[in-house]
Amino acid sequence: MSGLISEKDPGHDYYFGSYSHFYIHEEMLKDKERTLAYKRAIERNYNDFKGKIVMDIGAGTGILSIFAARAGAAHVYAIENAEIAHYAKEIIKRNGLADKITVLKGKMEELTIPVPKVDIIISEWMGYFLLYESMLDTVLWARDKYLVEGGKMLPDRAKIYLAAIEDGQYKHSKTTFWDDVYGVDMSCMATQCIKEPLIDTCNGDMIISDSCKILDLDLVKMDKGDVEFTSEYELKFIHSDKCHALVAWFDTDFADLEKPITLTTSPYCTPTHWKQVVFYLDNELTVKKGDVLKGSIAVRKSKVNFRELDIKISYHFDSPQCTEHFVQLYKIK
Amino acid sequence: MSGLISEKDPGHDYYFGSYSHFYIHEEMLKDKERTLAYKRAIERNYNDFKGKIVMDIGAGTGILSIFAARAGAAHVYAIENAEIAHYAKEIIKRNGLADKITVLKGKMEELTIPVPKVDIIISEWMGYFLLYESMLDTVLWARDKYLVEGGKMLPDRAKIYLAAIEDGQYKHSKTTFWDDVYGVDMSCMATQCIKEPLIDTCNGDMIISDSCKILDLDLVKMDKGDVEFTSEYELKFIHSDKCHALVAWFDTDFADLEKPITLTTSPYCTPTHWKQVVFYLDNELTVKKGDVLKGSIAVRKSKVNFRELDIKISYHFDSPQCTEHFVQLYKIK
Repeated sequence: MSGLISEKDPGHDYYFGSYSHFYIHEEMLKDKERTLAYKRAIERNYNDFKGKIVMDIGAGTGILSIFAARAGAAHVYAIENAEIAHYAKEIIKRNGLADKITVLKGKMEELTIPVPKVDIIISEWMGYFLLYESMLDTVLWARDKYLVEGGKMLPDRAKIYLAAIEDGQYKHSKTTFWDDVYGVDMSCMATQCIKEPLIDTCNGDMIISDSCKILDLDLVKMDKGDVEFTSEYELKFIHSDKCHALVAWFDTDFADLEKPITLTTSPYCTPTHWKQVVFYLDNELTVKKGDVLKGSIAVRKSKVNFRELDIKISYHFDSPQCTEHFVQLYKIK
Repeated sequence: MSGLISEKDPGHDYYFGSYSHFYIHEEMLKDKERTLAYKRAIERNYNDFKGKIVMDIGAGTGILSIFAARAGAAHVYAIENAEIAHYAKEIIKRNGLADKITVLKGKMEELTIPVPKVDIIISEWMGYFLLYESMLDTVLWARDKYLVEGGKMLPDRAKIYLAAIEDGQYKHSKTTFWDDVYGVDMSCMATQCIKEPLIDTCNGDMIISDSCKILDLDLVKMDKGDVEFTSEYELKFIHSDKCHALVAWFDTDFADLEKPITLTTSPYCTPTHWKQVVFYLDNELTVKKGDVLKGSIAVRKSKVNFRELDIKISYHFDSPQCTEHFVQLYKIK
């Protein structure tokens, strides 16, 4: 079996080795929504950057640091722990910015930073479902140690949203696949489909409810414990249809700037490499326009493995055609 | 950044968590060339299986064990270390074969097997480039401990082939991407393209030479050290063109059976999930039909990390239009 490295796209390539890490950088750089949001936030707000000391956490190829240096930062400290840091140094040198940007290779918590404080922290730290395997803890630690009073974070706000979707065709094809596998009944595998959240691109057509914000983080003020939360939610159906799943996505704002920018991963907007996260319901709900789904979502770091997320979604749905009470624990590992 | 889980296909989904391991099984089962090769090898040779004791190493969902049991095996021991073993047990039970197949969950080297010897070992152990992260060591260990004298292995032969390809458009697009990344010169990243082997599907159109076998393993007789080898190769160009890379693929044979079967991953045949492995050359070669590329390929397990492969490819090319001596170390990590 070749399962340890799984590439999913017959038309797409996959690199072995250290480049598998470099491939990630190519993928992220090719995500225009992502990269241009940061570029615009920095370039359109060059007044906020002029003469400032900037820290770029998880700098990768150094692109955000270069944007900041070109916007007029006095100096940028680019923090990166992986081998890509060597390439960042080379890239920065080639682009004539070695006097403006210092690459520091190492773990944030272990490095010696040449300045006691910085004016701005930039970081692209977000993971799937915003929080999965994100660098947020590291960013907050650096904020507490290095950011001046009144200093800026880019981004400075992050929100997660929920909506309901119709996704019958896909769910059906995934579950019925297991009914007959070369003459073998593997239908017991189908139940796994709904217990594991799915990263997938949803489009606006699939959405059959309004959306509900379930988390709102002020990155300048929050505590690291705020990533564990419980929120009530309420979704009002805007179509009569079958509801198969809930979809979650996030926005990050570059708000505290002269010209604010939002980076969104909404299913109504151009897809990003983060896509969205889909939580399939056990049973489909038959819903009418105007019906309301009320429930609660709780997100915790797994006690078994701090890198994992446990997400419990419950709801109560009460309508003339359908009454359902549902509780499901999803694990993002 | 969401780089730790990278899904490559905007149209394809990716599951989190334990299901990410189950996704692998779905992918392998959906590889028809792979699964049908085993199914045919077993079913068409039911006489070889009738009344026999069979061991299935790395049984996964148990599909090969089920094929063997249905072909008339007296009993099958399905060895699987991952959580999927629990599903294999359920699947086997649901298909009425719990009396014929025993699932043993654990590491091959640590399990107690209820019988001293088995007549047949079946295993789908192959990795990218045949050998990368393959289960072959485990299969050979089990062979030495459990296979009766004269017992059968399925497959029983494995070969790796090399050929030369024209791939200018792709290589160009991969390398030129880095020249201008949002106004930043990242051209130093392009050199990584050629140092890392690439898993990709090549088609027959790209091949501009004959193919050359560089490894031929008799799985019944080989030593585990035979996976480290050095082979001379010779490729005769069948087209006048530019040569950008070498491509490698493997075949596995189910040869020692009444009705032999070959499972091939050749670029001339239907692609499998293994695709092929491409090694880009530093500089393109201008070749004429009839020209010959002579060289050597050496494959070693990395001393740094035994799971990694070091592959050194060298060649000498001498023609009126072009003389080139080339040595490159590729790492499959």
